[in-house]
Amino acid sequence: MNITGRLLILAQAKTDAEALEMMQLSLADWAACGIAGAEDRAFDGFRATVTGQAGTGTATVFGGGRIPPAGAALINGTLSHALDYDDTHFAHIGHPSVAVVPAVLALAEERDIPFAEMCEAALTGVEASILVGQWLGRGHYQTGFHQTATAGAFGATLGAARLLELTPDQTRMALGLCASMASGLKSQFGTMAKPLNAGLAARTGIEAALWAAAGVTAASDGLAGPLGFGPTHHGSADETALPDAGSPARQILQISHKFHACCHGLHAMLEAVSKMNVTAEHVDRIMISTHPRWMTVCNQQNPETGLAVKFSYPHTAAMALAGISTANIARYTDETACDPQLVALRERVTVQEDDTLSEMQARILVMNNDGSEVSGFHDLAAPVSLAERRSRLMRKAVALIGARRADTLWSAVDTGDFRAFVQVIGD
Amino acid sequence: MNITGRLLILAQAKTDAEALEMMQLSLADWAACGIAGAEDRAFDGFRATVTGQAGTGTATVFGGGRIPPAGAALINGTLSHALDYDDTHFAHIGHPSVAVVPAVLALAEERDIPFAEMCEAALTGVEASILVGQWLGRGHYQTGFHQTATAGAFGATLGAARLLELTPDQTRMALGLCASMASGLKSQFGTMAKPLNAGLAARTGIEAALWAAAGVTAASDGLAGPLGFGPTHHGSADETALPDAGSPARQILQISHKFHACCHGLHAMLEAVSKMNVTAEHVDRIMISTHPRWMTVCNQQNPETGLAVKFSYPHTAAMALAGISTANIARYTDETACDPQLVALRERVTVQEDDTLSEMQARILVMNNDGSEVSGFHDLAAPVSLAERRSRLMRKAVALIGARRADTLWSAVDTGDFRAFVQVIGD
Repeated sequence: MNITGRLLILAQAKTDAEALEMMQLSLADWAACGIAGAEDRAFDGFRATVTGQAGTGTATVFGGGRIPPAGAALINGTLSHALDYDDTHFAHIGHPSVAVVPAVLALAEERDIPFAEMCEAALTGVEASILVGQWLGRGHYQTGFHQTATAGAFGATLGAARLLELTPDQTRMALGLCASMASGLKSQFGTMAKPLNAGLAARTGIEAALWAAAGVTAASDGLAGPLGFGPTHHGSADETALPDAGSPARQILQISHKFHACCHGLHAMLEAVSKMNVTAEHVDRIMISTHPRWMTVCNQQNPETGLAVKFSYPHTAAMALAGISTANIARYTDETACDPQLVALRERVTVQEDDTLSEMQARILVMNNDGSEVSGFHDLAAPVSLAERRSRLMRKAVALIGARRADTLWSAVDTGDFRAFVQVIGD
Repeated sequence: MNITGRLLILAQAKTDAEALEMMQLSLADWAACGIAGAEDRAFDGFRATVTGQAGTGTATVFGGGRIPPAGAALINGTLSHALDYDDTHFAHIGHPSVAVVPAVLALAEERDIPFAEMCEAALTGVEASILVGQWLGRGHYQTGFHQTATAGAFGATLGAARLLELTPDQTRMALGLCASMASGLKSQFGTMAKPLNAGLAARTGIEAALWAAAGVTAASDGLAGPLGFGPTHHGSADETALPDAGSPARQILQISHKFHACCHGLHAMLEAVSKMNVTAEHVDRIMISTHPRWMTVCNQQNPETGLAVKFSYPHTAAMALAGISTANIARYTDETACDPQLVALRERVTVQEDDTLSEMQARILVMNNDGSEVSGFHDLAAPVSLAERRSRLMRKAVALIGARRADTLWSAVDTGDFRAFVQVIGD
């Protein structure tokens, strides 16, 4: 069965309970990222322009106001990815929630669909985006496509199709319409168009589903058929990269949540440090070993700005050793970059590549002044219990949006209180 | 200078007077196609859905109603391409007006910009889409991209940028944003998503320009730079295919307007027939010679439906010989396909390929019962005076939308009466 056939089955399939629990954690994390992202004033003009084209409606946008679902998904997808702090799936090569959740949330709010059904549709969409991301493969990404947006649009479409209870024929048309709209380039990284790509994917999901429901026809297999999205966009179409078609859809369990407000390449190292018993004043030298890919991504030796710190092994390691929270976005400032104590500490750090490590692994060795050594290792692929994730994501939310809003948000997700959930989003 | 540099210059350049006159002809033709296209009830659900997401506004849509510009451009671009009867530029490999005109029209109406300025912006956009289409080249098209929509989105963006008087830096950002949104697959041909691709391109132009004006940043050369739209979408990037950078922008003068409501591959033949002096009853045999490409596109021998007739050399030749208007969409019916007189005539037609002919040329030889022969030839690339085009396009408009609306439309374009123009569009 080809990828489109698998998606059509997934749209109707029963959801897995553990996967659904993970979806709820991602949903709360997504909302916290979006509420914090909405405080970035750079996007105010964008938000005002989209709102101006959209009129009034019944779907809440981050930061307040309600507009029709397509525009709300566009704004919410963009703002929730603005901080680049949302969830990641390494096999998908993308951030699943920012494309899918805004689509199903906006439609569910408009149509008064229960919170639990929205979560199921979100899970379907996330699983679909992971499948499509794997099927498009690394070649698609290396060519220059932003998988968060391209695979994400198909995920958003399938999530919206499930939520709207489209027939299989309509769902096929919705996927066909998505094939003509899914887009987004990696060359936007470092600009505001990177998060915008996520917002566009979310809107595509809504529009593809609504238009298919309204009778708009499209290619019968727009994703994988002749001249389809995959063949035209350097997709690998590697069916063997996908899990068994018969197995339950629970790839979401491999999602990696960000617990540090910096480049994902630094996270394994920071996790390793967090498990070590070290005192900054006693440190003589620090050796970090990482996958070669990261050496050109996040190994700035002497960062001078808060932004540059987010891409620096030596400086974030120094922060972690000095007990400064790397989870707190507010700590990535120019002052932190120039702090004499941290600068002195980062100068003791050496970073080396090690091709025996995976992209998700890091090793660290701390040599103390007294000649003793402490070593650490972390693999982001190692299982983290849902309970532990939950507790860490709750702390992350507090750091991002403050205790009051974090409490309201988590309580709304736990009780499935749709009204409370959208209230905190628009707070 | 690369393609993006050329576009930035084009955005500010003085427009050519003859090119502007051609733009006005295309504008009137575009409107007639859209007014007629809006009568296709299949798109009613689509129109209602877009309107529902858009609220009220000040940009007129075909068939009535006013909504904000982005939604209006989406609807108008789609409906004006629904009949596939709008203008074509063979070097662009696309239909320029359907992507560009809806974008500048909606913005100009909302902002009360004079008709003449809108026409200049439309011309800029059309010239831009032709340049980008040529630069992307045939490889992009053959891979499966729908140049009307992809190159068209860049044209719509540049037209909107000119209309809104964006600065060069903002225009660069708008083109960068467009690079992440431009999309559309040829595998949609034969479905409603084909015209939808044009509508999406028009909307992209508006959104890219508005968002750039609102401060959204993007890749500095999203079209031609590293991992840009061209490199990632199988663009040929053949700068030598473009006219001299210093020459005035007037490629619009090579636009081919459709004067027959059928596949463009049939037009050279139908033009050749129209110049021949033949009486159907006296015809014994007819030989048609055409470019090999068309043999698999529009050479149906025994069409049984009105739609199939649109792709049939023998049947449309029979219609033309029998004096039935091939310009009149209403004549492409199942009854016409089965008309015994036409069926008898079409059986006398032989079609052969001739690789000495261009795609825009056809040759025809009619052998009469009395042994006499009449031959004809037509090249769609042969110059047609603006006066002759005008007179034929006016007749076409009458056939499409009736004399009353056609008169109002042409008079509005001739006098630059914006209010009358949008009134007839929304009539």
